Amino acid sequence: MTIPETMKASVLSVDGSLDLDTRPIPQPGPNEVLIQVAAVGVCGSDVHYYRHGRIGDFVIHDRLILGHELAGTIVAVGGRVDQNRVGQRVAVEPQTRCHTCDQCSAGRYNLCPNIKFFATPPVDGAFCEFVAIDSECAFEMPDSMSFEAGALLEPLSVGIAAARKANVVPGSTVLIAGSGPIGIICAQAARAFGASSIIMSDPLEDRLSKALALGATQGISPAEVPNIEKVDVFIDACGVGPAIHAGILATKAGGTAVLVGMGAPELRLPVGYIAAHEIQVTGIFRYTHTWPLAMGMVADGSVNLDAMVTGAFTLNEVKQALESDGDPTSMKSIVYPTNLAGPLAGC
Amino acid sequence: MTIPETMKASVLSVDGSLDLDTRPIPQPGPNEVLIQVAAVGVCGSDVHYYRHGRIGDFVIHDRLILGHELAGTIVAVGGRVDQNRVGQRVAVEPQTRCHTCDQCSAGRYNLCPNIKFFATPPVDGAFCEFVAIDSECAFEMPDSMSFEAGALLEPLSVGIAAARKANVVPGSTVLIAGSGPIGIICAQAARAFGASSIIMSDPLEDRLSKALALGATQGISPAEVPNIEKVDVFIDACGVGPAIHAGILATKAGGTAVLVGMGAPELRLPVGYIAAHEIQVTGIFRYTHTWPLAMGMVADGSVNLDAMVTGAFTLNEVKQALESDGDPTSMKSIVYPTNLAGPLAGC
Amino acid sequence: MTIPETMKASVLSVDGSLDLDTRPIPQPGPNEVLIQVAAVGVCGSDVHYYRHGRIGDFVIHDRLILGHELAGTIVAVGGRVDQNRVGQRVAVEPQTRCHTCDQCSAGRYNLCPNIKFFATPPVDGAFCEFVAIDSECAFEMPDSMSFEAGALLEPLSVGIAAARKANVVPGSTVLIAGSGPIGIICAQAARAFGASSIIMSDPLEDRLSKALALGATQGISPAEVPNIEKVDVFIDACGVGPAIHAGILATKAGGTAVLVGMGAPELRLPVGYIAAHEIQVTGIFRYTHTWPLAMGMVADGSVNLDAMVTGAFTLNEVKQALESDGDPTSMKSIVYPTNLAGPLAGC
Amino acid sequence: MTIPETMKASVLSVDGSLDLDTRPIPQPGPNEVLIQVAAVGVCGSDVHYYRHGRIGDFVIHDRLILGHELAGTIVAVGGRVDQNRVGQRVAVEPQTRCHTCDQCSAGRYNLCPNIKFFATPPVDGAFCEFVAIDSECAFEMPDSMSFEAGALLEPLSVGIAAARKANVVPGSTVLIAGSGPIGIICAQAARAFGASSIIMSDPLEDRLSKALALGATQGISPAEVPNIEKVDVFIDACGVGPAIHAGILATKAGGTAVLVGMGAPELRLPVGYIAAHEIQVTGIFRYTHTWPLAMGMVADGSVNLDAMVTGAFTLNEVKQALESDGDPTSMKSIVYPTNLAGPLAGC
Repeated sequence: MTIPETMKASVLSVDGSLDLDTRPIPQPGPNEVLIQVAAVGVCGSDVHYYRHGRIGDFVIHDRLILGHELAGTIVAVGGRVDQNRVGQRVAVEPQTRCHTCDQCSAGRYNLCPNIKFFATPPVDGAFCEFVAIDSECAFEMPDSMSFEAGALLEPLSVGIAAARKANVVPGSTVLIAGSGPIGIICAQAARAFGASSIIMSDPLEDRLSKALALGATQGISPAEVPNIEKVDVFIDACGVGPAIHAGILATKAGGTAVLVGMGAPELRLPVGYIAAHEIQVTGIFRYTHTWPLAMGMVADGSVNLDAMVTGAFTLNEVKQALESDGDPTSMKSIVYPTNLAGPLAGC
Repeated sequence: MTIPETMKASVLSVDGSLDLDTRPIPQPGPNEVLIQVAAVGVCGSDVHYYRHGRIGDFVIHDRLILGHELAGTIVAVGGRVDQNRVGQRVAVEPQTRCHTCDQCSAGRYNLCPNIKFFATPPVDGAFCEFVAIDSECAFEMPDSMSFEAGALLEPLSVGIAAARKANVVPGSTVLIAGSGPIGIICAQAARAFGASSIIMSDPLEDRLSKALALGATQGISPAEVPNIEKVDVFIDACGVGPAIHAGILATKAGGTAVLVGMGAPELRLPVGYIAAHEIQVTGIFRYTHTWPLAMGMVADGSVNLDAMVTGAFTLNEVKQALESDGDPTSMKSIVYPTNLAGPLAGC
Repeated sequence: MTIPETMKASVLSVDGSLDLDTRPIPQPGPNEVLIQVAAVGVCGSDVHYYRHGRIGDFVIHDRLILGHELAGTIVAVGGRVDQNRVGQRVAVEPQTRCHTCDQCSAGRYNLCPNIKFFATPPVDGAFCEFVAIDSECAFEMPDSMSFEAGALLEPLSVGIAAARKANVVPGSTVLIAGSGPIGIICAQAARAFGASSIIMSDPLEDRLSKALALGATQGISPAEVPNIEKVDVFIDACGVGPAIHAGILATKAGGTAVLVGMGAPELRLPVGYIAAHEIQVTGIFRYTHTWPLAMGMVADGSVNLDAMVTGAFTLNEVKQALESDGDPTSMKSIVYPTNLAGPLAGC
Repeated sequence: MTIPETMKASVLSVDGSLDLDTRPIPQPGPNEVLIQVAAVGVCGSDVHYYRHGRIGDFVIHDRLILGHELAGTIVAVGGRVDQNRVGQRVAVEPQTRCHTCDQCSAGRYNLCPNIKFFATPPVDGAFCEFVAIDSECAFEMPDSMSFEAGALLEPLSVGIAAARKANVVPGSTVLIAGSGPIGIICAQAARAFGASSIIMSDPLEDRLSKALALGATQGISPAEVPNIEKVDVFIDACGVGPAIHAGILATKAGGTAVLVGMGAPELRLPVGYIAAHEIQVTGIFRYTHTWPLAMGMVADGSVNLDAMVTGAFTLNEVKQALESDGDPTSMKSIVYPTNLAGPLAGC
């Protein structure tokens, strides 16, 4: 295709307003690919930036493009990239690492202090028509996979990172606090890792129903957590203090608690219980080495991402997409920067 | 030797008073050995029971003999134990496990729900002349090792468990909060595991001096912790909330924080930092499989336990021994149930 | 039920002949259960003892009852066992450990030097009407599980041990040499552990067809092994030297090769390749902690054991059962010591 | 300093002859440093290339500079390197990785298929006056460390890699076959990792004496290996088939055998023993992330490298240096490309 010089982008201002701007299309660097964005999932962190202008130490000081769950089509490549990649449908890992720091060198590039992550200030994201990123971050999708599923490999990567960190193995029993999109995707990942029991808690009945349809073996209200048989693994996917406290107490001696949900920077934790039962409490910060596995899990049917999509929006409707979480039946909203109807014509 | 029928024991009452009682000498069961107790270290948990009548869920409801750091001489054995063990000088692992529960079967017998641990209600301890315990819990000491060092293999086991749990390896950098006996013994263990840098914090200059003499590479005041270069491993050996908070924040991304000190059952922890930097926060509950290693470390000089002894007491003086922590120069008090002078005559 | 005093047993003589003998029914010890045997799988090791009178250092010096893959019904219990276990349908882990040696204490009871394993000289096995074993070795089966599947949890445990030892995780690529019963059960286990690709090799087309029906993603002849893309994990399930050699060479740098098949005690291995690519070469000896997981895998459908059964025999027909491996379409023969028809009447 | 345009280099021809050539001094790339070489250790692999023209698949097809154990002084830096590095005394990790392949990305850069390793055809080594290498491969040495010790951090890295791969921890018992330089350096590393017992075998009494002086706790002849108490870890540092065979049989159930020595590409191994005792057999290929640790071990005295030096040679004497292994009292020969006397004047 002939690549135009400018594109449309939905840009968040420091005052919280969203505008459809015209921006130059990025030039791919020597190791980069240029991707026409087909589908972008809306993440809780996008919503948080939109509503609060910051997440912890990351503050929006300048106009920013949100969106970091994306798939699209490669339309141009840099000089060191295989020209045959043009035309590939790809899912994108939205982080560029330095490759040389101690963390990268040890294989933990998610902890790279030099990382550039889409839609994290000051790095722009994907609510726009085109993005450029390192070729190694663009993973070719099988023909059978939808762009929506391709975009949602990003939250699935979070679920995979949680399952790995929690050492979920065949037969593990798991409790997940929170049955929103991340909770359910953690449940799907835990199931794919062989968990034999996945109890999910949520105050909303609707969410528990969805959870049961998508991987949970039991759905309970938060009040019931103290009554369950203790589990090998607790995953927090809600960020709510009392739920985390109760979840840790519901973890077996020698078990693991992984914090995935974002909430208060400080919480009161039962350190006496943690120490006396040697509970491992930790969290995950994004993910490493997950896209090929995530893609395989979707391709072989162990995980169902298409079933999580509940809303479709254009670039003009990013505001509505970000506010769709007000509807309790909403799970995952997708923004289609190029086309409302889904897969791009000609791809 | 001819074993008498009764013995002296220092017994703690529910009201906190200590009396020297006469008790029947225990009969060793078929797999047990009977040990004439030569030396017993005073532990912070003994002091805590003495002062508060409880530690967490463990409450003294009945008269109890304290003391669980001990060494002595085998004077009789049960029917299934090798008769040649009589006369052996032994250090004692003061816990008897069930061998068959899930935790024992997985090799984590410290988490055995059926464990019987000396001086933990309702199980009597070692401030008395004789104790009986499973033969496998009595480890023969080399001739060169003092009974005092033999007794202090118990706190050294705590240090070893902490070093293992924290995955201290050659080159690790370690911060230890608290330079009391447990902090210093954790430092000695970390050093023996190859840590290249061991920073210890304490408000008391005297304690820092001792720490520097016994394994620390740097001693700082708690106020300086935020200024140090971040470490691979943080070990809390004081149980003080702000120290734990600061220690976690001083831990590198991907590092480990191990809670050894006993303090409040709940603490405010920086969960945002923990999650964003994938810190592993955990604790240790006693130890498993440590005595042979601990003994080897003392025998080859990597650890110096004799240098930690600062006081000697008879069975009549258990009260003074328990209160010796009021003296800031005191580190480890030893009770000699049979003889004040140290090693038993004829052993 | 009223338990008779004697039972029928199929007994192997040192000369290789099999007779139906009358034997006293064992008395369960205090921690034991007495089981009326419903179904016993025939294992390659039974066949090996029958044909060669030995396996490695284990030699049949006296008359022996073979059979160690079994399920049945508890008909009596020892004094320390819950009386309510009588009537339970159970699958049996056919090994009794000492609980106290270093290996047991470390959680690796399969390496216990004091282990008693069914049908390993001089310990009798299960080709008989009743057996007694430690209560902890008898696992209650769900009503939906057949006795045949219950018996085959034993070879499934081998597959689980192989998958654990090889560290099969979601996304692993696996090559299995040999598509006999153990190869196929390793494939089923690897699949349940999340392997994304399972290539099986075998010279027999029939076996490859079965393998493809029961978990393999690709079936190839041994000659094709050098041409495949290198794998994360190689599992040998045939014991044939050239297949092991080729399988190791087909393993990626940093990968693992696990020897499950029994063959020659010594083999020529490519140590240059092993060292230069840091391949981990190891084997498994039986299993630990597998029955609950194996049962769960069958119950939730991740593994299909019933489909592996290809022959039914009475106690009188043990000879034919042991010789059924001559038929290339045979996979798993089952001996029904009490009843030819399968599940016992009244259970 | 003013850097000249040419330098002297000892170059190996395909026919095995060595000449002192004049070569252009390399220009450091943007991320590289230029190092004036002060000391180069002679390694068995240098000797092997000199005598046989190849090591396994690595064949000398063109003239090659040998030598890969080196230290020196930075005399110039590339454009992206801190100018303050000029003048630093540095020890060199002689391998340049690609940073982006799967192995690099997973933290195992020693297995990087794109690696460039000094003195491995077709990459030149360090028997010359100047070399250029990535800045990250040049580690600043403390003033107290000699250039000889700096050069020998390379073989120490091999020992560290072996200790890590073998999972040597405090209390481990270790058997090392071969008491040449690599065996002794493996012993020193194992000691620094906390091994409590290090048995070394060698047919030469002289070598055993040196081994005992430098870390071994016991020295035995190869014939005695079958009589020792079984060990946790076996490290082969000789490459001799029968020694490897015997070493594996001397390893405890659940233990590890690591092949470090280079010998025949194929060996007859006791696979029956390996499988029945779940021995992990593996090897190491160079090392990752070792220089800072190695430097610390030398600096704090846990390892003594200076004591291993037994010969000094100029660039003109590389032939003699390579042939010095004929003398059984020789352990480590050092080539001084710039100066015979050792540390460079003015450094």
